[in-house]
Amino acid sequence: MNSHITTPIQWREDRLLLLDQRLLPGKENYLVCTTYQDVADAISVLAVRGAPAIGIAAAYGMVLAVRQVPPGEDRLTFLAQAAKDLEATRPTAVNLAWACRRMLRVANEAVKQGEELLERLWKEAYCMAQEDLAMNRAMGEHGQELVADGANILTHCNAGALATSGWGTALGVIRAAHAKGRNLHVYASETRPLLQGARLTTWELMQDGIAVTLVTDGMVGHLMQQRKVDVVIVGADRIAANGDVANKIGTYGLAVLARAHNIPFYVAAPTSTVDMELASGEEIVIEQRQADEVRQVGALVVAPAEVKVYNPAFDVTPAEYITALITDRGLITAPSRSKMTEVFAT
Amino acid sequence: MNSHITTPIQWREDRLLLLDQRLLPGKENYLVCTTYQDVADAISVLAVRGAPAIGIAAAYGMVLAVRQVPPGEDRLTFLAQAAKDLEATRPTAVNLAWACRRMLRVANEAVKQGEELLERLWKEAYCMAQEDLAMNRAMGEHGQELVADGANILTHCNAGALATSGWGTALGVIRAAHAKGRNLHVYASETRPLLQGARLTTWELMQDGIAVTLVTDGMVGHLMQQRKVDVVIVGADRIAANGDVANKIGTYGLAVLARAHNIPFYVAAPTSTVDMELASGEEIVIEQRQADEVRQVGALVVAPAEVKVYNPAFDVTPAEYITALITDRGLITAPSRSKMTEVFAT
Repeated sequence: MNSHITTPIQWREDRLLLLDQRLLPGKENYLVCTTYQDVADAISVLAVRGAPAIGIAAAYGMVLAVRQVPPGEDRLTFLAQAAKDLEATRPTAVNLAWACRRMLRVANEAVKQGEELLERLWKEAYCMAQEDLAMNRAMGEHGQELVADGANILTHCNAGALATSGWGTALGVIRAAHAKGRNLHVYASETRPLLQGARLTTWELMQDGIAVTLVTDGMVGHLMQQRKVDVVIVGADRIAANGDVANKIGTYGLAVLARAHNIPFYVAAPTSTVDMELASGEEIVIEQRQADEVRQVGALVVAPAEVKVYNPAFDVTPAEYITALITDRGLITAPSRSKMTEVFAT
Repeated sequence: MNSHITTPIQWREDRLLLLDQRLLPGKENYLVCTTYQDVADAISVLAVRGAPAIGIAAAYGMVLAVRQVPPGEDRLTFLAQAAKDLEATRPTAVNLAWACRRMLRVANEAVKQGEELLERLWKEAYCMAQEDLAMNRAMGEHGQELVADGANILTHCNAGALATSGWGTALGVIRAAHAKGRNLHVYASETRPLLQGARLTTWELMQDGIAVTLVTDGMVGHLMQQRKVDVVIVGADRIAANGDVANKIGTYGLAVLARAHNIPFYVAAPTSTVDMELASGEEIVIEQRQADEVRQVGALVVAPAEVKVYNPAFDVTPAEYITALITDRGLITAPSRSKMTEVFAT
């Protein structure tokens, strides 16, 4: 089923293949990673992106690190450094830290138990990818009921197969509703500066045969005013213990606009994106990226070379704007600290 | 004073020079127009843009048309056709129709009075450009008091010298406040698809030495949430009799976000942008532009070639979202049909 869905992260014998998402939709090219540093580089340049996907890529990066331990050096010390380097690539998505810490914990246990370290870590990374897929499917099942036949859905950035191990969070929900035979239409906002909506979301949906219309980020208010949007569904990069959500820059504006137009606003994310250690979204570190991402589109310069730029990669949407979180553990309507604790405390 | 401010529309002996704004900020190149069709083409491809500027360019286009009347053909019939062709290039900004009708009225009178037609029309076009400049200056004077020392101002698209005969509507207000010695900082939203904010507004403000920071359109909500914006000032393409405003796509979303954050939202526009014949913004025709403007950035393809696109060039902001209109006839606070009638009925 759905064999055409792209798998952006593929392990092949002794190396990790990462679909280079910077080149999509023009070119489908896989980066070959043989060291954990290759993986760290791929994450920091956004060749692989999306909170769940970078978690899984980092887990496989930890597998590659095992073979890099210099003779005579302590394996766990080396792996701890690798985890630190991988985590440092991007600060906002919690999946990255979550995956690295999980791999370190397993490595510690494997060494203690005298297990074959490489094999044990590879199995853990593989399981994480499978779990991610299963969580995506579960979110799809829980969320699809929110998408009625004939619905016009607005999504932002790319929360699809490319952002996960191969099904999607927000797009997973849309795919699940489509699989139920519902007739859907998606508006994809292009998502400047890096155009994940224009390049990736449209491409994924067209491959699936789901109707999609591309708009610029500034058009979303007008779309809502014209009653062209029935529901908004986005992904997440980190969800705090009170239900506040960090996601791609532009998400907060969408949420405020959806509220002003009485349009339900849903966030789809797996347990791995939830950070119960953060009391609220105010504590989430927002990654600031290079000015040239805004001054340029790809290699094309679109602004004065010396102009000052503000380029936060994410923003934080307070829980009060969120109609429901769509998680692998079920829907959390009107998310709050107590509801989050109930579902995610364990 | 301000001799460095760019004049995008220049008459030279027998031809019209239009600064090709598609090439800015990389290249300052003037298109040479010798026929009214040259001017119509320049308006439709957006080489010249901005409601006041296209009105003035069209007025000069009518001057060029006088010399194109074929021998034996009725001059007024030919000019009426030229006006129709010029008006057809862009439907939303009322200044275009306003300018063409004014030129036709003057042509009729000149023929009736036996005046030299070319000379009379040239004088009218020249006066319109001078009037526009004067209206811009008046708006600046009325509006500057709304911009306090130390203010962070958000503007959208380009409502500057390039959009007028050489001072600006929204940027004219900012320039006037700057000229009073106030310390200002402007956030320019890039304004996809055609990036007038990134390419033109930043360039104008940097030439003036006014601090400017470029952001993408999706960042505006986050900026407001972070309390980085004290006031929003934009231009307009058409203002209906009840105070509803058509302006560059994205403006409506800004207005809703400003309201949600208790930030004043001002629209600066001259009398020539007011259309008292339209009861409300719902009657304003919104120009739909080509899909490739969104699928591409310049010549760079950024989305699947066949993806469907929705590309309205403007949106309508209801009067209730507007703190005040800044016009050449003074401020209109909380604009309404009765206040508009009071100021613009004559």
